[in-house]
Formats: sequence, C-alpha cells, structure tokens
Amino acid sequence: MGADDVRRVAEALASARSIVVASHVDPDGDAIGSTLALWHALQTTGATVLPVLARGTTPPATYAFLPGSSAYRQAGAVPPPDVFIALDTPNLARLGEAAELARAASFLVFIDHHPDGDDVGHVRIIDTAAAAVGEMLFDIIPALGLSVDKAVATCLFTAVMTDTGRFSYGNTSPRSLEIAADLVRHGADPSAIFRAVYESRSPGALRLIGRTLSRITLAAGGAIAYSWVTDDDLAETGALPEETENLVDQVRALGGADIVFLVKESAEGQRVSLRAKGAADVGSVARRFGGGGHAAAAGFTFSGDRAALLDVLVPALAEVLP
Amino acid sequence: MGADDVRRVAEALASARSIVVASHVDPDGDAIGSTLALWHALQTTGATVLPVLARGTTPPATYAFLPGSSAYRQAGAVPPPDVFIALDTPNLARLGEAAELARAASFLVFIDHHPDGDDVGHVRIIDTAAAAVGEMLFDIIPALGLSVDKAVATCLFTAVMTDTGRFSYGNTSPRSLEIAADLVRHGADPSAIFRAVYESRSPGALRLIGRTLSRITLAAGGAIAYSWVTDDDLAETGALPEETENLVDQVRALGGADIVFLVKESAEGQRVSLRAKGAADVGSVARRFGGGGHAAAAGFTFSGDRAALLDVLVPALAEVLP
Repeated sequence: MGADDVRRVAEALASARSIVVASHVDPDGDAIGSTLALWHALQTTGATVLPVLARGTTPPATYAFLPGSSAYRQAGAVPPPDVFIALDTPNLARLGEAAELARAASFLVFIDHHPDGDDVGHVRIIDTAAAAVGEMLFDIIPALGLSVDKAVATCLFTAVMTDTGRFSYGNTSPRSLEIAADLVRHGADPSAIFRAVYESRSPGALRLIGRTLSRITLAAGGAIAYSWVTDDDLAETGALPEETENLVDQVRALGGADIVFLVKESAEGQRVSLRAKGAADVGSVARRFGGGGHAAAAGFTFSGDRAALLDVLVPALAEVLP
Repeated sequence: MGADDVRRVAEALASARSIVVASHVDPDGDAIGSTLALWHALQTTGATVLPVLARGTTPPATYAFLPGSSAYRQAGAVPPPDVFIALDTPNLARLGEAAELARAASFLVFIDHHPDGDDVGHVRIIDTAAAAVGEMLFDIIPALGLSVDKAVATCLFTAVMTDTGRFSYGNTSPRSLEIAADLVRHGADPSAIFRAVYESRSPGALRLIGRTLSRITLAAGGAIAYSWVTDDDLAETGALPEETENLVDQVRALGGADIVFLVKESAEGQRVSLRAKGAADVGSVARRFGGGGHAAAAGFTFSGDRAALLDVLVPALAEVLP
C-alpha cells in the first residue's frame, strides 16, 4: 500500500461524521470478516460507522458468530455516508444494492486484492499478492492509527483462514501464515473460529454430503469424478438449498481425480459445478455450455436430463485433462 | 530445549557411524514427517542413517508422497545403531518392534511433546507446549548444525499441519503458524502437501465416509451425535480397514454436538472412537469401559452388540456433557 493513499484515507476518516463499510454480494468469509474487522476498528473514530450488506437482510448464518454480525444494515436503510469503504470488491456492480450509497458518498475507498478492478473511487488500495483483504487490513488498520483488538483479530483470522482454504490453497504465502500467527497473539482463537466455520453443519447438510460421497462415480480412468444431488435428496435429508453451496468441494477429496464436478438436479434443469484440482481449465468447458468461471472453478446450467448431460460433459472435460 | 542437551546430542552424532530415527506405532503425520525430516537433515553427517518403522513394512500410504518415505526399514532388518533417536514417542513400549534397537543403541535420544513420558534415554528433549515434534525439530535441526532444505521443510510442514489439524486444534499457537510460514519460505508447498494428505482418498474411502454421514444420529437433544460402520460396509464400498482411521472426525462437522463418536462393528466386537468438540472429558468415559485416551479423543472396545453398547454409552456420555 502507498503511504500517500493511507494518509488520504486517514484524512477523510478524521473529518467524517458517517462511514459505511461494505463488500460484495454473496459474501464469503473474507468479505464478512474484513468488513466487521474494519467496522470494529473504526468505532474509536467518533463517527457513525455501519457495516452494510450488498444484498438481503442478514449475513450468511455461517458468520453469525463473528462479533458485530448483528450490526449489519440493509443498504436501503442507510443515508449516503461521508466515507464509503468497499472491501474485497473490484467494481461498483459487485456492491449490489450498496452501489448507490458508494456513488453518493463524499469519499469512496476501495481496498481489494482482485486483479482487473474498475478504476473507480477516490483512493484504491490494491494488492493482488494478498491472499485475503483481511491480510491487507492487518497492515492498513494500524497504519490508519487504529487498533487490532481481539474482535478485530477474530474477524481478520476468519477472513484469512477462509480465503486460504485453511492455509491450503496456492495463495497461502509465508505472509498469510505470519499474519495468522500475529492475529492469534492479538486474541484470535483458531479452534473456536474453525469450529464455528467448519464444524457447525446441520444434520441434514451432513446427510446430503453423505449421499453425495456415496454416489461418487469415476470416468476417464479416474481422472474425472462426479456426483449428484436432487431436490428429492434435499427433502429427504432435510438439507437447505443454501447447504448445497461448496458441496462439490467434498468430491475434491478423491485422489487421482484432476477434474471433479457435482450436478444439482431440479425441475429447472441440471446445475453443474466444475472444479479442477490440477492444471485443467474447466472454465473453458463451462463457457462452451453457456456458463462461466475461472480455470479452477466454473459452472453452467443444462436443460436436459442427467444422462444427456453426462453424455456430452464427460467427453468435453476429458479433452481438457492435463 | 536446553543448550546442554543439544550439545550432548551433537557430540553423539559427530562420532556416530550409524543412526536410527524412529517413531511410534500407528504413525501419524507428525511421526512420519518428523522422522523423515530428521533423516534428511542427518544425511550430511556421513553416518549411515536409517528411518525405521515401529511396526509393519511400509509407512501409511497417505505419507508415501513425502521425500524419503521409501527409505524406511523394518526394525528387524537393522543392526543396533550408535545413536537411536525416538521422535513423538513417550516411552519404549510405543516404539513397538523398534524398542529393541533403542535399548541396544549406544546412545538413546527422545525428542517428544507428550506429557508423562518415561524417564528413559541418555538425553530427553521434551516440550509439552509444542503442537508437534515437527515444531521442535525446526529449532533443533539448525541447533545441531544441520540444514532445513526443501525436503526437510516439506516433511516438517506435514508434521505441523497434521498435528494441528490444519491449524485448527486448540494446540495451534502463534509459534505453530510462524514455523509454518518459515517452512513455506524454505520451500514447503502448502497446497501440494494439502492435496497429498487430504485430497487423495480412494473411491471406497469416500463412499464409506458417505455411509457414515448418511447415518448420523443425534442423542441428548443434539449434544451427542454418532454413526457406525461395519465390516460389510468395508466390503461393499471397497474401503480398506486403515481407511476407517479418523473416520470419526467426519462426524465432528456437525454443529451443536459437544461429543461425537463412531462405532466400528466387526466379528470381534464394537470398537468405539470418542471425540469431544468442546470441554467434555471423553477419556474418563473410555476408561470406565476399559479403554483410554485424552479428554478430547479416546476409545475403547465393547464386546456386546451395537444396541447394547448405545444403551450404556449414551447415558454415560450425557453425564460428562459440559
């Protein structure tokens, strides 16, 4: 981060009577953790500080354990602030319902680690080498003259832990782990945070994972593996639709598979989530089927039945195997 | 560690022509990772250095990816060494078939983090605050004048990652995370190690996890949760008996449960693995049933059928709920 950028943000905060902190729609652990960490840290400024959701009325239940999660407001219920700080968000569109507040704010700041963000905002602090915006805030919060207390540390640890996949994704740097160490020194409790994020599934969600794993099927000599769930599975296990998010990651645990995918079958068709464990580009396949995503994670919707889907999808994926 | 202890070990190593490094029976990631890390580091001493198994002929398949795993020898095939270094092992009994080599060695060293170890060995370096022996070796290897290269770093990262449950157990200290950061700087690849340890399951193992999760049953209003597998499940899913290790940890993902357990039913009886997610002491219950273990992880074997087991076990666990 540039010292000049931080100075300009500090000056804007010093004269602000109202500050909004927000992140992207469909918020993940970095979005929620970073927003609440900065919200906590800004409490000492004397301004009215509000964390604002980009969509909906409450943050995801997974992150309800974070201190301050009940302080979230809907964007429509908040007047335009003096300072708007957008976190983990490359552009105004990803701010959803909060974009209007961002446009109307006197001073707009983006703190982000995504590449290819729009050139919008009075100050943009961008670090594409950071695994999480939570990492960036660990430096920025003290640079703004604010403190990292236990609540801030808990939120930032959650941000770093989730965005690095528990320190296992390729983005996990020595710096990620060092910051995590410092956050534990500042009061973050790794085991309590771990239990809250990863060991708080519902019985229905676990039974749905059970069905998913029981059905794992191999193709292309084991290099491709897939499974599926249906609306009937949700009804029978008691799992909620939101509990199918990331279900495909359970299939990743299979050794030898370079590409894994999960099909969610409903009356509307087949929703396919693709994941590459190695070097395959599943995004290119998703685009061929009218979907999108990255090389390692992508998805699309198919209007035929599951057998018809497998007939065309498996050969298409076999073509992009490493 | 005491400087005097390290000096005595360094002196013994300096004159040694043969060195054996070994760990406990049923080796985990810390046992294998620490043993192979020290074995690698000792290659420069000029002595004949061998990693020796406490039981069996090969280390667990999960850790076959570690550099040096093919160097392991059976205890019976190795002559008594000048120096024997026992890692992650509190006593001779846990060395299994390697205990005889340890007794016959001219110089016997224990490097361990367990409390209540036996007072055996010429030098004992014990740090009960270390989350893993791998943490201790990160300091001890350089103190012995040896180097932490990429192979050593990979083995030590595996040791620390597995013994802290991917930096999520209560033993995860700032020091654990700092050492992990330094190990990445020394060449350890977190995502490659993660994939090898946690994303290399067999189709049979995943199907067995599927059955386990599909059967999750709640008791005590959800504070206790359990599941079970049988020999028939292994045969039908194709999972190997060794793939039932840590199967109980899959049940931990359930929110609201303070105690979880898994029953493995076979012709020999019911083998029960108990885990406390919170403050409950499941070790005390295991001991009542003739088993043993720690407050957070324990086990025992029961000779009746599953229904008879549940009739007595669930009420006993309900008594120790926090």
